[in-house]
Amino acid sequence: MATLQEKVEKRIREGREFVSCWEFDEQDFEGYLTDQEQKLPQPALSKAPMTDKGMDLPKDFSELSIDNDFLHVINSRESHRVYTGEAMSLTELSYLLWCTQGVKEIRGKSYATLRTVPCGGARHEFECYFAVRNVEGLEPGLYHYLPMHHQCEFLGVVDDLDDWVSRSLCGQRWAATANVVFYYSAVFYRAEWRYGISSHRVLLIDSGHITENMYLAATSIGLGGCAIGAVDGKTVDAALGLDGIEEASFYAMPVGKVTAKDKAKEKAFYVFVEEQGL
Amino acid sequence: MATLQEKVEKRIREGREFVSCWEFDEQDFEGYLTDQEQKLPQPALSKAPMTDKGMDLPKDFSELSIDNDFLHVINSRESHRVYTGEAMSLTELSYLLWCTQGVKEIRGKSYATLRTVPCGGARHEFECYFAVRNVEGLEPGLYHYLPMHHQCEFLGVVDDLDDWVSRSLCGQRWAATANVVFYYSAVFYRAEWRYGISSHRVLLIDSGHITENMYLAATSIGLGGCAIGAVDGKTVDAALGLDGIEEASFYAMPVGKVTAKDKAKEKAFYVFVEEQGL
Repeated sequence: MATLQEKVEKRIREGREFVSCWEFDEQDFEGYLTDQEQKLPQPALSKAPMTDKGMDLPKDFSELSIDNDFLHVINSRESHRVYTGEAMSLTELSYLLWCTQGVKEIRGKSYATLRTVPCGGARHEFECYFAVRNVEGLEPGLYHYLPMHHQCEFLGVVDDLDDWVSRSLCGQRWAATANVVFYYSAVFYRAEWRYGISSHRVLLIDSGHITENMYLAATSIGLGGCAIGAVDGKTVDAALGLDGIEEASFYAMPVGKVTAKDKAKEKAFYVFVEEQGL
Repeated sequence: MATLQEKVEKRIREGREFVSCWEFDEQDFEGYLTDQEQKLPQPALSKAPMTDKGMDLPKDFSELSIDNDFLHVINSRESHRVYTGEAMSLTELSYLLWCTQGVKEIRGKSYATLRTVPCGGARHEFECYFAVRNVEGLEPGLYHYLPMHHQCEFLGVVDDLDDWVSRSLCGQRWAATANVVFYYSAVFYRAEWRYGISSHRVLLIDSGHITENMYLAATSIGLGGCAIGAVDGKTVDAALGLDGIEEASFYAMPVGKVTAKDKAKEKAFYVFVEEQGL
């Protein structure tokens, strides 16, 4: 029976190997062909609507006051966990969705979507869901982004939404003060069709492209957020009806209205640094 | 003895689990504390210089013509694998390094670096190296970015650099026409000190933040690139003197001068889509 120390060391070693190995032991997988290489039919480029209530999102962003000093946006991006409670407009939400998952073009007949973020092999194996707490014109509850037509659909209400949001993020209660919490899932086969056993490492990297655009797009219109890896997949998958095997949630980002006046409150999240003299 | 099919299925299952599981089986790791929780001393915030030849990089970006239409930068970002061969200026290179790993502030005495990209727990466990092919004022060869003082250091020349670049990226020869190829490594313990066995999944996500800023910063000054997961870690680690265990390369991005006139050449990379009627 392995000791805790042995189990930890094994897990660390496996984690490091997962990060650094692109190719697996070639002898072990001699003759391996991905499903694309075997010319198997490819999966759909995005998930079919889950309801018949697709709702157009505004595509005209001219009403937004966008910070058009690119380097200033890069330099002023910060993590924000304190929100003002002011409502977010539907156009602001639409802008965030566009900048992070918007479909600009289809390659081939239906080979790939080209989006506002890059993704290995243009597989874009992600789905974006979001919990609305405080957005003008949207009922609080869970939604699904429909990238093909820049629409969203209402999936339903959640009993005690704030409690659910907090639980969905492993008890991070500050997240339940954001205007919107974005949840990302992976539809694994969309990547595996092309990349097979090499899919999962790159999938994680590609998901970081999405949230970085979320950080910057939010910053550019006076919003803020903080990406979260600590997602309680079981809670999120159950609410969204995902099986956790073919499609699983794994990443999230609360976003809300922010103000420079809350800088001191933000610092409270790091009070341990001073307390411990780090 | 497992069949190829069984090995593939096992590997796919493990990959999916790695993506979707934040928490491991808690019973298995009962009593587990990370090194930070055990109050063990934290590792250095960045790697010490590898030479005594640190070279200041320009911090004044006013000579650059930056696209200051934020949404246009987001919308016009594309993957670029065809480069003009025109030289990149040192200020352009410096701007790319700043926008992707620049240190804006130190939190606490030496608890964390706050950078132009977000990273879980502000651990910033990455090191950035780069192969220079064609940058004004820099000898071709390998370099290391020193984020603490926005400097770089020359590590040395490589015999047949173009061949090495191509091999380092699993034979992707187009990469050896870029002006610069950025290579990212992970110094694992910098993240593990805080996140222990949960580090590696978030590490990969966080690396995507870096390359997304690289894509956008490059786009904003008329450059282009394409992030690559298919890094030959052994080749890169050997050239950079990394042990592949405590520090391992895992991700790369060639960047170069691009022109809209090369659009047709870019399309050649996707000719299979039409050929196969996809």
